[in-house]
Amino acid sequence: MKNNLDEFFEKVITVKWGPDKKSIDIIDQTLLPNTIKRIQIKDKEALWEAIKKLRVRGAPAIGVSAAYGIAMFANEIETDDQAKFLEEVKQIKDYLASSRPTAVNLFWALNRMEQTAIANKDKPVSEIKKILFEEAEKIREEDVQISRNIGKIGFDLLKDLKEDGKELGIMTHCNAGTLATAKYGTATAPMYIALENGWEGKDMHVYCDETRPLLQGARLTSFELVNSGITTSVQCDNMASLLMKTGKIKIIFVGCDRVAANGDAANKIGTSGLAIIAKHYGVPFYVCAPSSTIDMHTKTGDDIPIEMRDPEEIKSMWYKEPMVPAAVDTSFNPAFDVTDHNLITGIITEKGMCHAPYDEAFKKLGIV
Amino acid sequence: MKNNLDEFFEKVITVKWGPDKKSIDIIDQTLLPNTIKRIQIKDKEALWEAIKKLRVRGAPAIGVSAAYGIAMFANEIETDDQAKFLEEVKQIKDYLASSRPTAVNLFWALNRMEQTAIANKDKPVSEIKKILFEEAEKIREEDVQISRNIGKIGFDLLKDLKEDGKELGIMTHCNAGTLATAKYGTATAPMYIALENGWEGKDMHVYCDETRPLLQGARLTSFELVNSGITTSVQCDNMASLLMKTGKIKIIFVGCDRVAANGDAANKIGTSGLAIIAKHYGVPFYVCAPSSTIDMHTKTGDDIPIEMRDPEEIKSMWYKEPMVPAAVDTSFNPAFDVTDHNLITGIITEKGMCHAPYDEAFKKLGIV
Repeated sequence: MKNNLDEFFEKVITVKWGPDKKSIDIIDQTLLPNTIKRIQIKDKEALWEAIKKLRVRGAPAIGVSAAYGIAMFANEIETDDQAKFLEEVKQIKDYLASSRPTAVNLFWALNRMEQTAIANKDKPVSEIKKILFEEAEKIREEDVQISRNIGKIGFDLLKDLKEDGKELGIMTHCNAGTLATAKYGTATAPMYIALENGWEGKDMHVYCDETRPLLQGARLTSFELVNSGITTSVQCDNMASLLMKTGKIKIIFVGCDRVAANGDAANKIGTSGLAIIAKHYGVPFYVCAPSSTIDMHTKTGDDIPIEMRDPEEIKSMWYKEPMVPAAVDTSFNPAFDVTDHNLITGIITEKGMCHAPYDEAFKKLGIV
Repeated sequence: MKNNLDEFFEKVITVKWGPDKKSIDIIDQTLLPNTIKRIQIKDKEALWEAIKKLRVRGAPAIGVSAAYGIAMFANEIETDDQAKFLEEVKQIKDYLASSRPTAVNLFWALNRMEQTAIANKDKPVSEIKKILFEEAEKIREEDVQISRNIGKIGFDLLKDLKEDGKELGIMTHCNAGTLATAKYGTATAPMYIALENGWEGKDMHVYCDETRPLLQGARLTSFELVNSGITTSVQCDNMASLLMKTGKIKIIFVGCDRVAANGDAANKIGTSGLAIIAKHYGVPFYVCAPSSTIDMHTKTGDDIPIEMRDPEEIKSMWYKEPMVPAAVDTSFNPAFDVTDHNLITGIITEKGMCHAPYDEAFKKLGIV
């Protein structure tokens, strides 16, 4: 029997198969939160456009979409000749890779699919096609498992903090949720795992930073959480200090893009300020990090370059008219910032919880 | 000879007299930053509407507008009978007071004007009319003087921090500027006084927090600063931490609504988080506070109630379409927060600089 959570995931899941695996079914994230519309992707041009236009976004979600794409489009190649088949797979891969040239996880998934085909190049084409479907499914299932493990560790923290009959206040920043991954998200995984384990939506109250300038917290995180039945609020980023001062926030979970060997963690702009404020008020601050984001070759956060984005995101995006005078500089528009490891209570990976000193903790978990 | 700064003030000043003091000339702040339009107010209905609709805003600016209004409308009363004259002045006062029932400074200015009329009730009406014009001018001049004194003290700090040939990085939050006061603003006064003392616009670089949800930093502060010739940037509120980490910010000035006896300072939402981050990075954090905002009867910041505002300011205001799902709660929309005195480097009043312990410092300056 389906429960509410299954229905929820079916409704908002980023990527799933259409009927007979002849289409890829994605939720169009550019229309959220005002319109919930799923798109059926049937040709490679449509997938290319969906990745390019951020209809599907979030590193793991892009990876799964690309893997599904390779499996589905390879299945349509009409040849029994393995060399010809591999050549056409490569062409599909190169084409999809051009949709978002900075998305590392896109290339990773595409390469893994191509390598799988190459490794099986002596089998009949029909067999390779089957293996590619299986590999795409593996990529998806691995991401689900990573999120589930992170969620379980986070849920243990929630259980320790929960007071009977009271909603547990949790804060998050940006979107490290279902909408960025294959299923549970990273920073949202503890809450979804709580629902799977019998907690009700009203047992928690998640406070989402709106996360300027792109408003992923307002548009995406609050959308998915409220649809799962969890009590959900959105506040402006600059309200974090007063919100923590009220005592309502018992724990903070954030995602991350990249973690250095010493535990410094790069995540969406505003994360480091949130961590400083959390430390001031004594609120535990956890980074949810798939071990693949931990880069032991990056010594500290100072070695992580900060991407600057389009000034118009600050000046005019979303608005009826520009909100900043034309002569004013808005070129300081960093995509993310680095949170010092000293401000982080713990880093939750799918292999286990890490505490300072982080380099030792990472090594103990076999992360190299 | 007019210099650029005089021209600037003439262009953006909140309130000034029209020709022959037969109109009040205000800048319509609801149209900023995209349209610079000055309005000529000729009757009391127009002034009532301008205050109500926030065309003129900021406590001191509202006070000056109301005082100018009483003087101008009293001048039009056609009687030589003092009692009748006072009765009509009272009616004008009550009418204007109804425009914004929570604006303390509005009542203060209106009452002061009425009391001036009453104190001179034995003089000929023509004489009382003249005295009311003088009193309105006094109210304006007093505010200019308060800002000028705060600005001079702040400018001394800037001079100490200035390195030859380098722009001095200054940060501010919300709008405690020209557009909120009679002339120099409070948090902006140090910069305008610097210009009056021969600094050029490029000697400074002011970084304005956009200040969600009402965006006063983006729309108003950056507008006035860039028009004065100062190098001006706007960043999202959540970029403060990374901005300070770069080392660009040498000092922060903010305004305030109310200061408790122990130095806890209420100001626009986000100020307390900014102060926590500033302390983390060792950036000096100054509150610019006219002594009238210091309330020795309020022991600590905990005694200052926090006003909650319309949730739609977070959800939908400014946007082409709502950015938060309808089911999500945005009722936590505090107008301001309280910055703990421990986070404040100094409180600058027009009577002098105050350092901790603040209650003693305030008493030394004669603030009771």
